[in-house]
Amino acid sequence: MPTESPPTWTRKHLLGLDELSADELRFILDTADSFKEVSTRSVKKVPALRGRVVVNAFWEDSTRTRVSFQLAAQRLSADIVDFSEKSSSVSKGETLIDTARNIEAMGVDVIVIRHPAAGAAHLLSRTVKCSVVNAGDGAHEHPTQGLLDLYTIRERFGRVEGLKVAIVGDISNSRVARSNLFALTKLGAEVRVVGPPTMIPCQLERMGVKVFFDLDEALQDTQVIMMLRLQLERQGRALFPTIREYARLYGLTAERVKLAQPGAIVMHPGPINRGVEIAPEVADSISSVILDQVANGVAVRMGILYLMSGAG
Amino acid sequence: MPTESPPTWTRKHLLGLDELSADELRFILDTADSFKEVSTRSVKKVPALRGRVVVNAFWEDSTRTRVSFQLAAQRLSADIVDFSEKSSSVSKGETLIDTARNIEAMGVDVIVIRHPAAGAAHLLSRTVKCSVVNAGDGAHEHPTQGLLDLYTIRERFGRVEGLKVAIVGDISNSRVARSNLFALTKLGAEVRVVGPPTMIPCQLERMGVKVFFDLDEALQDTQVIMMLRLQLERQGRALFPTIREYARLYGLTAERVKLAQPGAIVMHPGPINRGVEIAPEVADSISSVILDQVANGVAVRMGILYLMSGAG
Amino acid sequence: MPTESPPTWTRKHLLGLDELSADELRFILDTADSFKEVSTRSVKKVPALRGRVVVNAFWEDSTRTRVSFQLAAQRLSADIVDFSEKSSSVSKGETLIDTARNIEAMGVDVIVIRHPAAGAAHLLSRTVKCSVVNAGDGAHEHPTQGLLDLYTIRERFGRVEGLKVAIVGDISNSRVARSNLFALTKLGAEVRVVGPPTMIPCQLERMGVKVFFDLDEALQDTQVIMMLRLQLERQGRALFPTIREYARLYGLTAERVKLAQPGAIVMHPGPINRGVEIAPEVADSISSVILDQVANGVAVRMGILYLMSGAG
Repeated sequence: MPTESPPTWTRKHLLGLDELSADELRFILDTADSFKEVSTRSVKKVPALRGRVVVNAFWEDSTRTRVSFQLAAQRLSADIVDFSEKSSSVSKGETLIDTARNIEAMGVDVIVIRHPAAGAAHLLSRTVKCSVVNAGDGAHEHPTQGLLDLYTIRERFGRVEGLKVAIVGDISNSRVARSNLFALTKLGAEVRVVGPPTMIPCQLERMGVKVFFDLDEALQDTQVIMMLRLQLERQGRALFPTIREYARLYGLTAERVKLAQPGAIVMHPGPINRGVEIAPEVADSISSVILDQVANGVAVRMGILYLMSGAG
Repeated sequence: MPTESPPTWTRKHLLGLDELSADELRFILDTADSFKEVSTRSVKKVPALRGRVVVNAFWEDSTRTRVSFQLAAQRLSADIVDFSEKSSSVSKGETLIDTARNIEAMGVDVIVIRHPAAGAAHLLSRTVKCSVVNAGDGAHEHPTQGLLDLYTIRERFGRVEGLKVAIVGDISNSRVARSNLFALTKLGAEVRVVGPPTMIPCQLERMGVKVFFDLDEALQDTQVIMMLRLQLERQGRALFPTIREYARLYGLTAERVKLAQPGAIVMHPGPINRGVEIAPEVADSISSVILDQVANGVAVRMGILYLMSGAG
Repeated sequence: MPTESPPTWTRKHLLGLDELSADELRFILDTADSFKEVSTRSVKKVPALRGRVVVNAFWEDSTRTRVSFQLAAQRLSADIVDFSEKSSSVSKGETLIDTARNIEAMGVDVIVIRHPAAGAAHLLSRTVKCSVVNAGDGAHEHPTQGLLDLYTIRERFGRVEGLKVAIVGDISNSRVARSNLFALTKLGAEVRVVGPPTMIPCQLERMGVKVFFDLDEALQDTQVIMMLRLQLERQGRALFPTIREYARLYGLTAERVKLAQPGAIVMHPGPINRGVEIAPEVADSISSVILDQVANGVAVRMGILYLMSGAG
């Protein structure tokens, strides 16, 4: 841990990476690091959070993220309950608050919330006294995904600073991209985004991010290629003519990976659309760290639950 | 604990409050009391039911009640599994019995059942050898809700006897009201019910309950105002012309709360319909004990699971 | 344990009973036997798999089997998570593999898979490094059901060898029947199958199985009557004119049970269709071991999880 790191953690909520300092980001990664090895033991369990209670409150389906948090909680010996409702029954923000207050009243330490509305986690954090961890709020942020991506990059290269990272896909609608943009720029990476013009937000340059519309050009000399999932289920909005066209222009092929630096890594938050944004042979190649991301996700979430529950 | 209390608990099932004596009600409240403090610890866990198995068998959705029982079980170190099926697949009572026998055969200690049919919990209790806890059966009873309400009243006033309690809403179709009527009258409260004539059952006077149709009149001089949830989803039965009309005549406003005694408390089993049966400013006021009810629910359910599993 | 048994267990996966030797079958039954008594204790828990992680990955609904595995895992002190998705989202085998690799990357010891496609468990076992337990794959195998049936028979008769067993119903489409056919013949039972010609596969005689189309004839002198569930929900395929006709020809009545040997047992994998394949009075009779099967299911699954997780 760098000497300038805070000696103890003081935040109660993890709402987004936008609000964290570079030191705080590093502190979380170091904490995650200390838990990573637990998942490789035959007895995958430490007593750190025994008797603490974590609630998975998912108003949007996500089996993977839900299970990753559940495993993280169990691995810390915390109890975890699932409080998921159809979003239809909580269409009003007011009801979301009532639900959160109810959960809190039952005696819990951390609420992990996923919600289709941007800002839902912030709203909750101002409402309840327990900790709130944002597991994805609309197109806003997905901080634990950003952290596990950071962790994976740092694990491979020993640093984040100075690395050339290309984020590819629907930047405008991706909370994964947003969280990564905040975190990567804070830690000194050189970030490029690339995608069709309809999927790139304005004003990214202000963050020091370079915008490309041509994938081949963007990949030149990069060390990290971060693919985003094409949200096939949301494409009613018609940001792109056809999936086939998208795949041709912005799909990552083995040929394109060669444009990056030797030893470059390929990332994807999953689940992948094989043959759309990523070619099967790339997803399964030695460059791919997609499954490392998944493994690191548990370690990062262990670290987050540990820090947020005040045990750190 | 009063000296006339039974020295140990002898019942195996909690089916309804109708069948319990005043002493038994007090015994449960005292047991819950001894568990309440556990939920406020950082290590929210006692080993009382380690290795015991509780099954949540919900044939009717209720995230809140299900989670409250789950937290109660975990807090006692019991294992809990969720055995919930769509009610469609168990439309015949016969099948309910077969399902219950199957659950029991797997080696469980307590079945917590919620079911749309009145009497389902009784039916089960005559079928299986393990304990049965009724978590709501049709319009019949919801005994743990009644107990947590009692607990909350006693916590505030130090007693139940002699208190003036008004229960407001659809009395006829409310299992919450029924369980409370049994419990409150047994413990000597002076109970009034109020609602539109279509929602008040006959013969309540026989139980010593006073019936009102005018809310303002009913609230006079009360110490406890217990609002019922208007089951908006069931109003196909047209017990009332419009929700707006209902809210005007039977909704609890800040103005109306003033008709009660100073220090009166406002209760609601949740989830609340803000602006229908209760005004938002009342729900969030200092008179409201709605979140206390939720917190006490976990303590009461810990007490119930503890007593029914024979550990007491 | 017979002296020719393997001293330790070497297989990592339980995919089907077809591939197991008679010794291996017996070894599993003996292991299950050592766990059976745990379910009858008040503290239903042994520390055998503390810190191990079991994942229930069900792409097909089955509350009973899912809960049986969950209880088995909890009873061994393992952690268990539920990773169930609608089969719609995993229609392609490719996606099934990606999902499995994701689950594995999170650090798990055993994946319990139920899937509508025959061969899904085999596919997984060639993909992941953790253990795979088949909880039913299409019409192929349901090995833990076959094992709990074997266990129940052996428990009653002290042996399987030489017993006359009739399996009744839709043999062609039953994975329960297939697993039982493999196991029973290996352990030396004399197996008969009986059902309408549309429901009996060809070439069963090659396995040493006798085929009957008349139930009364098939039941003569049997010691074990194993009824299969008529998959009412799948009968779009019209393998039989009417349910009434099926019940008349192939339903087990008290009268028909008398055709078997005195002391014969009646088995059914559940859930039963009362009045269709089995008369209510038979299901509830002293001959019925249906609930023993359910109880033994937990013991057998404890044994399987124990052996497959390498703790044995």
